Amino acid sequence: MIIMKTDATEEQIAQVITEIKKYGLRADISKGAFRTVIGIIGDETEVDFARLALLPGVKEAMRIETPYKLISREYSKLIEGENEHRVIKVGNIEIGGDNPVFIAGPCAVESKEQLLRIAEGVKKAGAHILRGGIFKPRSSVHSFQGLGAGGQEKAEEALDWLREAGRKFELPVITEIRGESQVDLVAEYTDILQIGARNMYDQDLLTKVAKKGKPVLFKRHFGAGIEEFLSFAEYMVAEGNKDIILCERGIIPIGKGKNYTRYTLDLAAIPAIQKETYLPILADPSHATGRRDLILNMSCAAIAAGASGLMIEVHYNPAEALVDGQQMITPDELKDVIDACQKISKLIVPMRNKK
Amino acid sequence: MIIMKTDATEEQIAQVITEIKKYGLRADISKGAFRTVIGIIGDETEVDFARLALLPGVKEAMRIETPYKLISREYSKLIEGENEHRVIKVGNIEIGGDNPVFIAGPCAVESKEQLLRIAEGVKKAGAHILRGGIFKPRSSVHSFQGLGAGGQEKAEEALDWLREAGRKFELPVITEIRGESQVDLVAEYTDILQIGARNMYDQDLLTKVAKKGKPVLFKRHFGAGIEEFLSFAEYMVAEGNKDIILCERGIIPIGKGKNYTRYTLDLAAIPAIQKETYLPILADPSHATGRRDLILNMSCAAIAAGASGLMIEVHYNPAEALVDGQQMITPDELKDVIDACQKISKLIVPMRNKK
Amino acid sequence: MIIMKTDATEEQIAQVITEIKKYGLRADISKGAFRTVIGIIGDETEVDFARLALLPGVKEAMRIETPYKLISREYSKLIEGENEHRVIKVGNIEIGGDNPVFIAGPCAVESKEQLLRIAEGVKKAGAHILRGGIFKPRSSVHSFQGLGAGGQEKAEEALDWLREAGRKFELPVITEIRGESQVDLVAEYTDILQIGARNMYDQDLLTKVAKKGKPVLFKRHFGAGIEEFLSFAEYMVAEGNKDIILCERGIIPIGKGKNYTRYTLDLAAIPAIQKETYLPILADPSHATGRRDLILNMSCAAIAAGASGLMIEVHYNPAEALVDGQQMITPDELKDVIDACQKISKLIVPMRNKK
Amino acid sequence: MIIMKTDATEEQIAQVITEIKKYGLRADISKGAFRTVIGIIGDETEVDFARLALLPGVKEAMRIETPYKLISREYSKLIEGENEHRVIKVGNIEIGGDNPVFIAGPCAVESKEQLLRIAEGVKKAGAHILRGGIFKPRSSVHSFQGLGAGGQEKAEEALDWLREAGRKFELPVITEIRGESQVDLVAEYTDILQIGARNMYDQDLLTKVAKKGKPVLFKRHFGAGIEEFLSFAEYMVAEGNKDIILCERGIIPIGKGKNYTRYTLDLAAIPAIQKETYLPILADPSHATGRRDLILNMSCAAIAAGASGLMIEVHYNPAEALVDGQQMITPDELKDVIDACQKISKLIVPMRNKK
Repeated sequence: MIIMKTDATEEQIAQVITEIKKYGLRADISKGAFRTVIGIIGDETEVDFARLALLPGVKEAMRIETPYKLISREYSKLIEGENEHRVIKVGNIEIGGDNPVFIAGPCAVESKEQLLRIAEGVKKAGAHILRGGIFKPRSSVHSFQGLGAGGQEKAEEALDWLREAGRKFELPVITEIRGESQVDLVAEYTDILQIGARNMYDQDLLTKVAKKGKPVLFKRHFGAGIEEFLSFAEYMVAEGNKDIILCERGIIPIGKGKNYTRYTLDLAAIPAIQKETYLPILADPSHATGRRDLILNMSCAAIAAGASGLMIEVHYNPAEALVDGQQMITPDELKDVIDACQKISKLIVPMRNKK
Repeated sequence: MIIMKTDATEEQIAQVITEIKKYGLRADISKGAFRTVIGIIGDETEVDFARLALLPGVKEAMRIETPYKLISREYSKLIEGENEHRVIKVGNIEIGGDNPVFIAGPCAVESKEQLLRIAEGVKKAGAHILRGGIFKPRSSVHSFQGLGAGGQEKAEEALDWLREAGRKFELPVITEIRGESQVDLVAEYTDILQIGARNMYDQDLLTKVAKKGKPVLFKRHFGAGIEEFLSFAEYMVAEGNKDIILCERGIIPIGKGKNYTRYTLDLAAIPAIQKETYLPILADPSHATGRRDLILNMSCAAIAAGASGLMIEVHYNPAEALVDGQQMITPDELKDVIDACQKISKLIVPMRNKK
Repeated sequence: MIIMKTDATEEQIAQVITEIKKYGLRADISKGAFRTVIGIIGDETEVDFARLALLPGVKEAMRIETPYKLISREYSKLIEGENEHRVIKVGNIEIGGDNPVFIAGPCAVESKEQLLRIAEGVKKAGAHILRGGIFKPRSSVHSFQGLGAGGQEKAEEALDWLREAGRKFELPVITEIRGESQVDLVAEYTDILQIGARNMYDQDLLTKVAKKGKPVLFKRHFGAGIEEFLSFAEYMVAEGNKDIILCERGIIPIGKGKNYTRYTLDLAAIPAIQKETYLPILADPSHATGRRDLILNMSCAAIAAGASGLMIEVHYNPAEALVDGQQMITPDELKDVIDACQKISKLIVPMRNKK
Repeated sequence: MIIMKTDATEEQIAQVITEIKKYGLRADISKGAFRTVIGIIGDETEVDFARLALLPGVKEAMRIETPYKLISREYSKLIEGENEHRVIKVGNIEIGGDNPVFIAGPCAVESKEQLLRIAEGVKKAGAHILRGGIFKPRSSVHSFQGLGAGGQEKAEEALDWLREAGRKFELPVITEIRGESQVDLVAEYTDILQIGARNMYDQDLLTKVAKKGKPVLFKRHFGAGIEEFLSFAEYMVAEGNKDIILCERGIIPIGKGKNYTRYTLDLAAIPAIQKETYLPILADPSHATGRRDLILNMSCAAIAAGASGLMIEVHYNPAEALVDGQQMITPDELKDVIDACQKISKLIVPMRNKK
């Protein structure tokens, strides 16, 4: 990491970047309220930091040996000060600000009618962003894989419904990208790109998605430790895209016998991650619990833990959904969730900001 | 399980019990608002339920093949109705009622002065019950094992301080029992008996503690699934003691690399357990996170998830504590936690009761 | 699944396939020693099996509700008989036969010289297949990502070295594919395509790799249960590629404190998987343990558990390797491993074949 | 740890012990081939090692900050040299020597006839020690808890059968102690005392059992890391009992979906533990897999991994056993297991001893 003097010139900054490139490495340039900081992307083993420190305009140059640095508070506090919370704008919606954001919609898009009806429901319930799965990651090749499995044309049709539903109800839209060949297509239609838990370790996909420059919702793998999760988020920020929205969606349950929940929602990861990074973090109680009767309590708990919002699966008739019916709630139930969460958020956010 | 007719006589009930004893089994008799239900404790394989069903006064007799039944909602709803929440009284304090209960105090009792000073602090902060460890379960035989390790006399002295501090500040007291030889002694001095996570599977200890007839705070082992946790709680209820307070304190973290929290606080276990049993459940954010800077958020989250209260470690000077300093908060910080939790509880409890 | 009569004609088989396609589903046709069996690939919910059973030449038609069926013993025993072990041929090497197969080589290809020297060493030690990573999956974007990260040209150069080294020492070669954009390129140069643990859930990548028609070595994710592992292998077999070599490489360790091994090598998964499927399974003690001083014992144990071979990382000077030096052994140590394993195999394989 | 000079006198040793006791701590004195080493048992924080180093006869005095030290190789190599393997004698049987030891018998003692018949069977099959559970740890209070649950008299009767069967077939005997109240009784009847996985963390029980001075078979808890396991073994050695036989019996499985094995047998823990301590370690494939069809392979694998023996559950008719029938093998199958394991041991042990 190279910290420039407050009065460093553009030429001096350019010279540092040139030196970094000579090592075959890339540079991340952050111009903040306080100063410009240049992060090195890649393996710093060969870099001669003592030499870099002597370049004109350089205040300090040091090796940082952590798997994530561009997203770390150590880095951001040099640039933006102690208490940065990155606020990511999607249309009029702010993710990471003082109001919790609710992303809602069906697990899988099934038809235009289904989507429009759910979009209307979640809008009325107070949600801000519409979700709908088109490329579904599934454990079994023999299960329904989403409309996207039907080929390019069907995929575009479903994406078009999603965009249309979003426009009609003034909701930015998000859908999951499961493979590299879907990146260009999805980026054309949606406002946020989602990388699901199962693809968290897929660094080639991450890089390709990040390069699109759109906000990315990035879910923690169910077997990943927090350090790993953040290290893979770093892959995207290393492409120059800092609009990464983290999402905790539950980890593998431990213990013999019946578990009663599908995954273990690791809510302490939320404040723990907020101590490490300025990126906003949401929670997904639907996938984590797999139980509609736990959504209300766990939504409230996630907001109380400090989450900047929630992703919740909604269907007007969960029983007839093609995927994950047992974890979806109705638009009416969503309204109760959002109301309760907003009250809790009003208690919690002032405590966050006071710190 | 044998469900008696509403007009069953005492003689008829006694006859059923006699029949159960003939199999070498014990009976749990629950006389509720609606009817008397008799649970069989032990292995029902040999029991002839068809024959029991023919006894006078018997409405229904059926085999139940679950590891826990006496604590299950299936059982309690026959007796007390759909929505029972067991409220356990300790002095004036109600655990499991409409107000959250806060158990606070040092990880380990170190001296009389330390204990009295902390007791005063937690009382002022609004706590209801005083904790203080005297027999400390430790991973290393070479670590401080609590004052109880100093022999019978030292143990009694420390227990006496605890009782005295409780009386002085009008706080019922609780301490952990780690081995069978401590049961009689501790039961003389404290209002609640605690079984720690590491002893959760120790069925002989559980049985011995339950027989004391005092309320027991029972922590989930960090490697135990929910079904296991409830099955071991059943061991105590099988001794006729239904004053069992469950406590979630975190499970083994999953994933490579740094975890950032000591354990994973499984908050979804709280509402999931409340669907299974009428016993109250608390959370312990101190042991779960191992980090004082996460206590406030995780306390709020636990209450939002539906916990009936919290157990929190407190020290006026965490840095000088003999055990677990990094996870203890000060009395002033405890006050902030209690205030925030009470506000959240006022939002959450009405939702619980409405259901 | 549709079981044809022994005397079913090609026309009758074709008619069944036509019917399956009408549902928008695909068919897997297996012509075995005993009979032809047609598996349905995809969601069978809508299929009318009663109607299919009436088609000419059909003996039986039934719905199978498991996440994997094409790779299951239930399926194969209809076709090949009780005790099928699929033997996959790569050049002269048989994987899954009566002799254990040893895949060895450096974690990462570093230079042509390094590779040739190691290839010579492993050949002399008795290894059968040469490995060498060119696209390295890494937890940190700031770590060395393999020569493949240097762009198309560098990647081809490294692949060319690998092919050349293989030809020179008569060793088929294998390297890992980490992203979809590498599939075509790697398939041109190597004899076996590897999918690493971190990509196990990446169904789009799996599908694309399988379509190449080459043998695939497929590693279990460190957070995956066995059922999941097999279900994702099914994705590849569903593309008509049955040359899938499974590989156990360790799962996330459980428990507090120091673990002493990097992952937990789940050796019981090997015979357990062999009861479920006819696909061969290897073990990778290098990644599982992360410790060169445990390789000998764990290699012997894996063969004793029934593994059809091992993948082992080898370097002539582990201390100077760019990646994973602490887990690589020398060619001399490899020789000891192979010698010991072959002796154990001679005891174990006859017991397998007797069953 | 205080290392005495080779010519240190008894008086000088006694003086060091006196100094240690002044701190309220205990001393472990090990007189080895090379020198006398004194370990301090308890919290060394207050100890002034600089002062101890000045005492006459003292060569070196140093603080050791690990949770286990008395059982560590660091400690033993000062006393016995680099390559100590502790060999524990039980009658004529050596545990930890050059020949693998087989402990076999029913999961639970059911009757005198059952026990004698199985004892005869395992003796003929080549087993060395007879096991039989009398106090069964069970997840459900409603399951059969072993004959010991029938009261003192029944427990003694069953223990008497065990001792008698052992004498009749010249097999030392072992049974599990589940609670403190069973220690004295069991120690009267059996040659080895067993502490089961569920009691691993029960330090009061460990201490009480160790004090009996008999060999203890100590199983790893299914949620315990290796460091924890060894740290609790240290509790027993701290009581002066170094005849502790470790046993790996499987840890909690990871991953979604069906697991196919009851626990995950962590075989790499065996050589990893042997690098840490001189205590012998066995494996229990019966509880680990829960499947009789995997016992042969996993027994061979455990011996190949370096285990000093196995504990295997045997019944002449597994289908009618009261507990764990699905994991027991017959005496005939045991013979096959023992024969195969002995052949593998002959390959493996020379490699161990060569090191």
